[in-house]
Amino acid sequence: MKNYLKHHEWQIIEEGFDPHLNRISESVFSLGNGRMGHRANFEEYYSGEKHLGSYVAGVYYPDKTRVGWWKNGYPEYFAKVLNAPSWIGIHVRIAGQDLDLAQCNVEEFRRVLDMKTGLLHRSFTATFPDGKKVKVDAKRFCSMADGEAGAIRYAITPVNFSAPATITLAVDADVVNKDSNYDEKFWEEVYKEAKEGQAIVTAQTKKTLFHVCTGMKYVLESEGRKVTGKAASHTKEKYADNVVEVDLKQGTELVIYKYGVILSSENHAKDKLVAVCQAKLDEITSLGYDQLFARHAKVWEHKWEECDITIDGDIAAQQGIRFNIFQMTQTYTGEDERLNIGPKGFTGEKYGGSTYWDTEAYCLPFYLSTADPKVARNLLVYRYKHLAKAIENAQKLGFKDGAAFYPFVTMNGEECHNEWEITFEEVHRTSAMAYAMRDYIDYTGDKEYFTEFGLEVLIGISRFWSQRVNWSADKNKYVMLGVTGPNEYENNVNNNWYSNYLAAWTLRFTQQAIDYVKSSNAARFNEIVSKTSFREAEETTKWKDIVDKMYYGEDTKRGVFLQQDGFLDKELIKASDLDPADRPLNQKWSWDRILRSCFIKQADVLQCIYLFEDDFTLDQIKRNFDFYEPMTVHESSLSPCVHVILASKIGYKEKAYEMYLRTSRLDLDDYNNDTEDGCHITSMAGTWMSVVKGFGGMRVRGGQLHFNAFIPDQWKAYSFKLDFRDRVIKVKVTKEKTDITLESGEPIEVISSGKTLSLKAG
Amino acid sequence: MKNYLKHHEWQIIEEGFDPHLNRISESVFSLGNGRMGHRANFEEYYSGEKHLGSYVAGVYYPDKTRVGWWKNGYPEYFAKVLNAPSWIGIHVRIAGQDLDLAQCNVEEFRRVLDMKTGLLHRSFTATFPDGKKVKVDAKRFCSMADGEAGAIRYAITPVNFSAPATITLAVDADVVNKDSNYDEKFWEEVYKEAKEGQAIVTAQTKKTLFHVCTGMKYVLESEGRKVTGKAASHTKEKYADNVVEVDLKQGTELVIYKYGVILSSENHAKDKLVAVCQAKLDEITSLGYDQLFARHAKVWEHKWEECDITIDGDIAAQQGIRFNIFQMTQTYTGEDERLNIGPKGFTGEKYGGSTYWDTEAYCLPFYLSTADPKVARNLLVYRYKHLAKAIENAQKLGFKDGAAFYPFVTMNGEECHNEWEITFEEVHRTSAMAYAMRDYIDYTGDKEYFTEFGLEVLIGISRFWSQRVNWSADKNKYVMLGVTGPNEYENNVNNNWYSNYLAAWTLRFTQQAIDYVKSSNAARFNEIVSKTSFREAEETTKWKDIVDKMYYGEDTKRGVFLQQDGFLDKELIKASDLDPADRPLNQKWSWDRILRSCFIKQADVLQCIYLFEDDFTLDQIKRNFDFYEPMTVHESSLSPCVHVILASKIGYKEKAYEMYLRTSRLDLDDYNNDTEDGCHITSMAGTWMSVVKGFGGMRVRGGQLHFNAFIPDQWKAYSFKLDFRDRVIKVKVTKEKTDITLESGEPIEVISSGKTLSLKAG
Repeated sequence: MKNYLKHHEWQIIEEGFDPHLNRISESVFSLGNGRMGHRANFEEYYSGEKHLGSYVAGVYYPDKTRVGWWKNGYPEYFAKVLNAPSWIGIHVRIAGQDLDLAQCNVEEFRRVLDMKTGLLHRSFTATFPDGKKVKVDAKRFCSMADGEAGAIRYAITPVNFSAPATITLAVDADVVNKDSNYDEKFWEEVYKEAKEGQAIVTAQTKKTLFHVCTGMKYVLESEGRKVTGKAASHTKEKYADNVVEVDLKQGTELVIYKYGVILSSENHAKDKLVAVCQAKLDEITSLGYDQLFARHAKVWEHKWEECDITIDGDIAAQQGIRFNIFQMTQTYTGEDERLNIGPKGFTGEKYGGSTYWDTEAYCLPFYLSTADPKVARNLLVYRYKHLAKAIENAQKLGFKDGAAFYPFVTMNGEECHNEWEITFEEVHRTSAMAYAMRDYIDYTGDKEYFTEFGLEVLIGISRFWSQRVNWSADKNKYVMLGVTGPNEYENNVNNNWYSNYLAAWTLRFTQQAIDYVKSSNAARFNEIVSKTSFREAEETTKWKDIVDKMYYGEDTKRGVFLQQDGFLDKELIKASDLDPADRPLNQKWSWDRILRSCFIKQADVLQCIYLFEDDFTLDQIKRNFDFYEPMTVHESSLSPCVHVILASKIGYKEKAYEMYLRTSRLDLDDYNNDTEDGCHITSMAGTWMSVVKGFGGMRVRGGQLHFNAFIPDQWKAYSFKLDFRDRVIKVKVTKEKTDITLESGEPIEVISSGKTLSLKAG
Repeated sequence: MKNYLKHHEWQIIEEGFDPHLNRISESVFSLGNGRMGHRANFEEYYSGEKHLGSYVAGVYYPDKTRVGWWKNGYPEYFAKVLNAPSWIGIHVRIAGQDLDLAQCNVEEFRRVLDMKTGLLHRSFTATFPDGKKVKVDAKRFCSMADGEAGAIRYAITPVNFSAPATITLAVDADVVNKDSNYDEKFWEEVYKEAKEGQAIVTAQTKKTLFHVCTGMKYVLESEGRKVTGKAASHTKEKYADNVVEVDLKQGTELVIYKYGVILSSENHAKDKLVAVCQAKLDEITSLGYDQLFARHAKVWEHKWEECDITIDGDIAAQQGIRFNIFQMTQTYTGEDERLNIGPKGFTGEKYGGSTYWDTEAYCLPFYLSTADPKVARNLLVYRYKHLAKAIENAQKLGFKDGAAFYPFVTMNGEECHNEWEITFEEVHRTSAMAYAMRDYIDYTGDKEYFTEFGLEVLIGISRFWSQRVNWSADKNKYVMLGVTGPNEYENNVNNNWYSNYLAAWTLRFTQQAIDYVKSSNAARFNEIVSKTSFREAEETTKWKDIVDKMYYGEDTKRGVFLQQDGFLDKELIKASDLDPADRPLNQKWSWDRILRSCFIKQADVLQCIYLFEDDFTLDQIKRNFDFYEPMTVHESSLSPCVHVILASKIGYKEKAYEMYLRTSRLDLDDYNNDTEDGCHITSMAGTWMSVVKGFGGMRVRGGQLHFNAFIPDQWKAYSFKLDFRDRVIKVKVTKEKTDITLESGEPIEVISSGKTLSLKAG
């Protein structure tokens, strides 16, 4: 855990330059706009520790799988998030010396991420070895108003000298992936040009042949007037630039405005890319930095209006929650149903593909409550579009008759992961698609989703479950063998309670969807029957049999559900009794030792209770929480938020607050010592849930909003807003009371702490 | 399965040249002498499919581990069998054309491995594209009389032309490993020289710094006279040769005698290697090919005397068993306690390290019965010498207080494998060391082995088991969680019956060893106590408690032992009901499907019953065999031999013969489609056991030899010999009777089919 960032309500602030922290800050200060993004790399050349990273949403490459020992069923190739061409570079050379912070004496270094406006602001004074001193003030943003545009304002002031300088303004597609399995470069040049004032490079990915066209245009100004230095343009492979010669005058600021455009062939015809790029470069350059920024900031203003959470009396908590919301918002805007929420967003390329069950289980509630319903709907449609691939994926593993097994990690619907105990056995994820549908329909009331898309997906998933369980003559029950639950500190177990529960629930939920579509739109139902070759009577009879005879492990003595068969054979020890030197277990213990211990990465029995809370009595919840929580080591970033919500539910306020701290500042404080690889984007939605569903106690039951709020002792007040069925509802909680107001929309009844409130706008 | 080799009692014969079979034949026709060996690569240059492989026993390199996903506890480096410098090459160029069988028309191709004398003999006629035709007759051997020497007799006869030719005779250390993780070459040059008539290269392995000095000397003869062509010597990096210009005369044979020497710094001082090499080259060259071969063949004659098995009336079976014995014998001679029996011997480099539990569980009985007792003893001492590393290995995984966990695969005592479910969890192998000790002592009566070496090892292993089990409050028993048994088609299971049984047996056996050493040599016992910090009372009390309260799964209804917890939750199907298109499962099914099926790679309950046969009633053996055998798919080469032995025991003669066929011609018929990587050396010992312990029913009980022989219907007679306590006993079985004769040694009583026979020599 680190603690080098200043606490501030709206800003992330780094003061002083520590090269060893640079890769962490590159992650934390990343910018994105849903379509593209960059790590907070310096514009100027930097020879120190860094990880140059630019990313374009939806662009991937199927790298050849590398494993130590091949297991049948592994994908031979799998899609990777690609490090993409960059338009960021502004290399400065003064009197023959590179401006390189690793070679200069750096003072007054300050890096600020203004979350309110999505602006990265960096300033410093650098002294060259020969004593020349320059001040630099650099601002940049990726436009939230135009997902294909960004701009930089880079100002240089010579403090104690006048000298000639060269400024190199480049577009660079000659980039590498940190996780390339065989050190391959994934981009090939298609087109490049450099002429005075601008440069454009189009590169394509090997195999997948995505084209990405990256352009830049720039303007130099000094003392309010445009400066026309002597510019020479160059190209080399996958690279184009302008090198401008200017004379720097002591005490006089030279301002470089660099405008960037990134276009993908996913959004434009390949043969039009260069022309569109040129037009857009011209447009944004003539609009100018200030105008462009104003439009961008306006979008952020509106976003914060929708989804801000305020916390009074705890600046670290306030900063934490806003950072989480900021990252979620700039990672996924919901405008493009082909996109999803990568585990690292635009902050790094680790973890291969872009989509995990995190999206459905953790991120969806955030977007449901803070954005237009179509955003959440697009996340569901994304999986609908991968249905054929999920069926193929199931076939590869020996399933048949249209069974759908969604991949654990994916980019294009194909599996992107290769550990057998996860790829083949962490089967629960395929039902996350069903649960998300329920979540969406409960929240929005949009049952028509079943008809248009949902039922097809549900039939595929239910077919998977009906083949994945088997009849145990010994138990006289259906059992599920050889799975890994969300608690990945157990592999290849039998009857993981979470997976069994979710499977049976999915079969029941599918029946509800069938009933709805059949009764509301018989023609569409018949169409689905025919498209999916659905043998309704036979298949649903089998499903019902499974639902009726599913095996659920239980410890009747303790009155708790059993995480898996044999769990009680373990030595049951508390995590608090572990030697602190042994934590985190995943860095200190060998894998087999973790597996046979009782310690839980994330408690999946509790996760299941959280998902289906109303199926359980408060007493049951309490007993299971009391049993599993002490053995949970929370070494998954997705773990603590669930514990906040359940602890809140059963009145364990201190535990709830303790868990909230764990989740909300994970990356800001580099809790797991891995933020340098990128931020934990998907778990950030869990932080939002911790406040809204945990402290706020928000639930949707029978189409109605319920609240059951409390305030942690450490806070003075907190507030959040919800978009709910064309209304905006604001909840403010203080020590004394909970205020729920309808900010806009038709009157509505909500339930707060059991009492029905009728809300009217104004 | 392939069937291209001719059946013959003493020879392996390939007729006709099929380039696609070449890599398989390179494996099958390999030669070795316990110290070095080569795949049956052509002497002349060959541009077609091949795998050039030369190996020197005991020389390894720690390659950097490569895995897809790192698990804590994996070794960062692990030792690999190294492809070593070669002295085999004789490249022939005639009138400007390479003699390259891939470029010539090849007729009368014949490759013969004469197992009686350990001679590889290859002959062919090759026609060059320009019509020139040559006959070649090539013989070679690796001397069993001198493990550092080998020789080639390579004869060329121009059939229809006379022309000048160049003969390149090389020593080449510029070799690559097929399984190098990062395409690295592992050898560096130390020394090279080439002068007329000879060449020497010393190369060293990176990191481990083994020196290997390889030399060659040659003589050319024609019409009985020495030929002195114009010879030029060359060197390049890691390479030295002579290129000899000769005139080939139509119809006249040119004979090239090439003598090779390979020396390792494991056996000679590094600074003496070149001098020793020179001396040995001079010696063997002056001795000449015929003398050298005669000495070599003499050793084989003696070996066959000791260990031959004859089978009358079934040439395929006779060839099969002799091939197995031949490979076992040329892989390991038992003269050097630092060496062991690699899974591929000198026939390939696959599978990393050289030593598996195969040595103790499968190979030891072969060497016990066919060689001097010191050979088997050396195999035990090998593990004793690795004890400190086994303790280190256990520490890496979190065990303490001197617990010894032998690696799954090793070369130098360190772990060489990296699949968590094997490396960390296939724990049973550590007790194979204890079982081998029992086997050795039972057979030889040498209880002093406990005193000298055994007890220290047993204390370490028992400490491992006492930490590896845990108390289950739920079962009120000791349980063993998270293991993989010998049946590797189950991973991370609880209470694998084989492992639990073996662990408890080891604890009991260790107590016997303690009692023996304590009573027979108190001083040595105290020395061991002090060396191992053995807290006798405390530790043995714990061990006894574990023995008394170990959990063993059982299906009381069926009266069978349970392979592991939850086995009865599976669908229990017979392997014979599988679609043949699904076989072998490990190539057709995804890993998860194999894991949750009932199908068994090798039946470990049966393996355990085989190891501890006298602990069970015939009825128990039968019930378990009837339950597990039908679910066993024998996809481990180690599986069928155990079934031969048990089927023989319970009178299932047809089953025993069926299983014998599976094991005995595994490589000759390329049963598993993988012989091209090398032969399955260790499982070959299983074939020997199938005859001796299976059909012959040989057991040692209370220091006495027992037999209970039967003869398969397909055979007329069979015979085998046993070295037993300074005697040679021959067993011959016909349809009518079993003859047991004492060939040499003091009189002895043996038991045959329950009757005591008193044997006298002569």
